[in-house]
Amino acid sequence: MKPLFLITNDDGVTAKGLQTLVEEARQFADIVVMAPSNNASGMGLSITSSRPLRAKEVKKEDGLAIYCCDGTPVDCVKLAVEHFCPYPPSLVLSGINHGSNSSINILYSGTMGAVLEATALGFNAIGFSLLNHNPEADFSGCRPSVRKIIDSTLEKGIPAGVSLNVNIPRLKADEIKGIRICHQASARWYDSFEKRIDPQGRPYWWLTGKFDCPNPSENSDEWALAHGYVSVVPIHTDFTNYQTIDTLKKVYD
Amino acid sequence: MKPLFLITNDDGVTAKGLQTLVEEARQFADIVVMAPSNNASGMGLSITSSRPLRAKEVKKEDGLAIYCCDGTPVDCVKLAVEHFCPYPPSLVLSGINHGSNSSINILYSGTMGAVLEATALGFNAIGFSLLNHNPEADFSGCRPSVRKIIDSTLEKGIPAGVSLNVNIPRLKADEIKGIRICHQASARWYDSFEKRIDPQGRPYWWLTGKFDCPNPSENSDEWALAHGYVSVVPIHTDFTNYQTIDTLKKVYD
Repeated sequence: MKPLFLITNDDGVTAKGLQTLVEEARQFADIVVMAPSNNASGMGLSITSSRPLRAKEVKKEDGLAIYCCDGTPVDCVKLAVEHFCPYPPSLVLSGINHGSNSSINILYSGTMGAVLEATALGFNAIGFSLLNHNPEADFSGCRPSVRKIIDSTLEKGIPAGVSLNVNIPRLKADEIKGIRICHQASARWYDSFEKRIDPQGRPYWWLTGKFDCPNPSENSDEWALAHGYVSVVPIHTDFTNYQTIDTLKKVYD
Repeated sequence: MKPLFLITNDDGVTAKGLQTLVEEARQFADIVVMAPSNNASGMGLSITSSRPLRAKEVKKEDGLAIYCCDGTPVDCVKLAVEHFCPYPPSLVLSGINHGSNSSINILYSGTMGAVLEATALGFNAIGFSLLNHNPEADFSGCRPSVRKIIDSTLEKGIPAGVSLNVNIPRLKADEIKGIRICHQASARWYDSFEKRIDPQGRPYWWLTGKFDCPNPSENSDEWALAHGYVSVVPIHTDFTNYQTIDTLKKVYD
């Protein structure tokens, strides 16, 4: 049986980044795509339980079936694994996202929400993101890194329960210095909602903000990206802060 | 200056669990509530950037200001910290959720999304959940545990960058055996979408599923809850799996 990859994203089924990922992934496996019908950026691990999901076939050809549904990236993974994959995928891929999901951005990312969901379901998964928000971004610089990471993952394997957050700098392929295994950089967003007044005189607020990561550690994803490397952060679904368990026993005894 | 707590939830501004938490928290501090106008369960760390937010005052009295907004729990935290808190809160509280957020449920939880967001913004935060989904759940058994946890947190403090996922069993107060500091149990959901056909003959899918946590470790939240304890899991916003960094360096060299 040929290996099968499930692919999703959060920019929606027509996104250029998704098309790029499908083209690269087809060299390794049969593909089922289940992606959101519309843009689902910033959805994190959101799930849809208050209404049912609709799904439809977009395209079917030899070794490739593309579906979309009106849910979140997590919904896409759940629904595809149970109803649209003919057998369990050997790898779940997400992206290529238009824009960074490094550092603290992983929290809100639909692309990475899908990866964490796949991990929770027992699959290894890889989320790819390019540091370029433009819908017409040039993904050609990504391609060799995406191929190499998929190839190495298939050949050497990664541990159960672990998935990858891969971010790729906005560079030409031959400008990329290599791949670095990193930890998630400590950073934060400074939000500054823009307050406006509507024509009826009522206030409303637009979310804006500024990402700030001063002096990232040399082993972090932000450092790697700033220095021309592809960053690969191994991630898991256990949010426990183990280091403080003993300390906290004294606080709540 | 009196301490200030920011309180939010995901069940919405009228939820009984939120009212209970406000009543208990008022004994310690002035309170600003910013909660979703409607139920926002399952929203995880979802943010709203494609449309602006609306917020309104629900109630204002001495030491208590209640607002709601039409965003997610994460939006509530961001907006309240910047525009509705008169000064920075010393603690951010979320809940009391109607239903468990133990183990893997933290991934999808709006209640815990708000806690992780507050943590990312530099606050200590505590999410409280009762193991009872009922909108009319009896929260009286929770009250002493909620008070004790808030009190100890104020008195002894918890480390920067760390917040708490507190789950409370569905028991009378005097049946609760105590508080245990735990790690997040390894568990999973088995999803089984229910496929239905609408009157026009088109399919749609309802998300359903079964939570499964076989043989939880004695130090995990699931074990504690099953044995009548309140579970307290210290959590953080770093999703890195540090144990595999060295292994992966050999995979992607």
